[in-house]
Amino acid sequence: MPKLILIGGVLDLGFMKQPLLAADPRLDITVWPEDDGAEAEIAVCWRPPAGLLATMPKLKLVQSIAAGVDGVLNDPGLDPSLPVARIVDDSLPAAMTEFVHWAVLWFYRGFDQVVLRDHPAQIWQRPPQHSPATCRVGVLGLGEIGGRVALALAGHGFDVAGWSRTPRRLPGIQAHDGEAGLDTLLARTDILVNLLPLTARTRGILGAETFAKLPQGAALINVGRGDHLVPADLIQALDAGHLRGAVLDVFAHEPLDRTDPLWTHPRVLVTPHMAAIARDEAVIGQIIENAWRTACGRPPLNPVLRMRGY
Amino acid sequence: MPKLILIGGVLDLGFMKQPLLAADPRLDITVWPEDDGAEAEIAVCWRPPAGLLATMPKLKLVQSIAAGVDGVLNDPGLDPSLPVARIVDDSLPAAMTEFVHWAVLWFYRGFDQVVLRDHPAQIWQRPPQHSPATCRVGVLGLGEIGGRVALALAGHGFDVAGWSRTPRRLPGIQAHDGEAGLDTLLARTDILVNLLPLTARTRGILGAETFAKLPQGAALINVGRGDHLVPADLIQALDAGHLRGAVLDVFAHEPLDRTDPLWTHPRVLVTPHMAAIARDEAVIGQIIENAWRTACGRPPLNPVLRMRGY
Repeated sequence: MPKLILIGGVLDLGFMKQPLLAADPRLDITVWPEDDGAEAEIAVCWRPPAGLLATMPKLKLVQSIAAGVDGVLNDPGLDPSLPVARIVDDSLPAAMTEFVHWAVLWFYRGFDQVVLRDHPAQIWQRPPQHSPATCRVGVLGLGEIGGRVALALAGHGFDVAGWSRTPRRLPGIQAHDGEAGLDTLLARTDILVNLLPLTARTRGILGAETFAKLPQGAALINVGRGDHLVPADLIQALDAGHLRGAVLDVFAHEPLDRTDPLWTHPRVLVTPHMAAIARDEAVIGQIIENAWRTACGRPPLNPVLRMRGY
Repeated sequence: MPKLILIGGVLDLGFMKQPLLAADPRLDITVWPEDDGAEAEIAVCWRPPAGLLATMPKLKLVQSIAAGVDGVLNDPGLDPSLPVARIVDDSLPAAMTEFVHWAVLWFYRGFDQVVLRDHPAQIWQRPPQHSPATCRVGVLGLGEIGGRVALALAGHGFDVAGWSRTPRRLPGIQAHDGEAGLDTLLARTDILVNLLPLTARTRGILGAETFAKLPQGAALINVGRGDHLVPADLIQALDAGHLRGAVLDVFAHEPLDRTDPLWTHPRVLVTPHMAAIARDEAVIGQIIENAWRTACGRPPLNPVLRMRGY
């Protein structure tokens, strides 16, 4: 009988106990901090408190409840040999594609100015209408989700280029990689979409240096991680008139503090980490599958490659 | 040498004189009201002042500058035998599809609440995420543009039904027609998209009777004509909690008056007739082609069937 512990932190995971038991009553589930985890074999978490996992000696698996595992891997006390698993849900790329397509249209069709600037002031000003072939979208990250988003946007007629750490090929997408490739991508991008995983190399990548390489009037869509962005650099680039605007769905601290200046910047749309969430049935099903796999000594579904960071 | 007259009204068309002459310097172009049109053979207009066209005895063609011709056909003094032509532009269905897809995502992904309600108050509330197969879109009008929009939405996975005056068949779309068909469509629709032409039979179709047949919580997207909508009925249906919200792109009088209550209703997004505009090159090219056709006694490109109304 696998012993699971649900660990809070940024997000309280106690609410998952009932749905997990409803799906498989044989599970032995406790919740931290009521239980200190001394006997726990599987830690289910998203962004656990730093150092907590290292205090649980019997852990055989760390199971993220999401696709992103930076909140686990960034824990400095995490045993490097401990397996980490993430959730893979087919609906995530579809949901992310919907969100990014909406946000690309937000800038390309001028909804940013119509909705944020003109509507509250009852101003009737029709934005120019272009062909999507004249709108250059640059996608950072061409993995499972970024690749799907890039292909979908190209299918809608946008002029799409992408960038990834290692070389990738996608039909109809100009694919770049490496440092020089990043500069090439930025120089030709009107709308920059960030879908990179968060690693030591990508943290802060959305900062002054990157923004300066974008053409005047470019826009930013951040659906990667909050720590990719340097918020002060974004505000400076917006206020200097270099960037047109931003749609931000992820933040270093969530929920975004109500006093954060991003909320009220006239050319920033803050959305509540809504772009793509794993469906409950995928999360519950994969946690249970991995509980039994771990109990039998088998490797988990959807293991994370620790060295790569995702 | 064909004699064109540019007629204002809701929209001042004098600005088109230079681009037309630049494209064909042989044209003889005047502008009403400087010229009274006594010699004019072709009236280029969108919504001419009522009765004006009847005062121009030599007219051989009325050329609309847009796809919609209700502004011309509704002129009570218009000679029924006078040919009317409209602009057909391949980019219109694509632009309309972009706008409607954006507006469908606005409701389906909860952007209406995130952007209009939560963002101005710095409230972080993640909307539920569904599958598009659970979102029932109903498209009124399955003509050249409505049909394209319906097919595109079905291609994105939405559950799409459509309604038209005369029976139509489209792959993957539940197509309805006639009075009973309209009731069937409304009863199963979460997001109603109006793309009907404006005729005597469709004027005011977006009113209390139609809204009452929609399920509780349905939303409205009007990209047809302003006169399809009864604004007071919409506001009542919203305030009674029956309808979720509306995206309105067209209005009986444009620009929408700054004191109109639609601007400030918390669940209405007003956009400035931006969904789909014929490209300048299509408008200019078809006007010139029809000028020469008329001069040679040939029928125009893209003639309107007057009895049908579009």
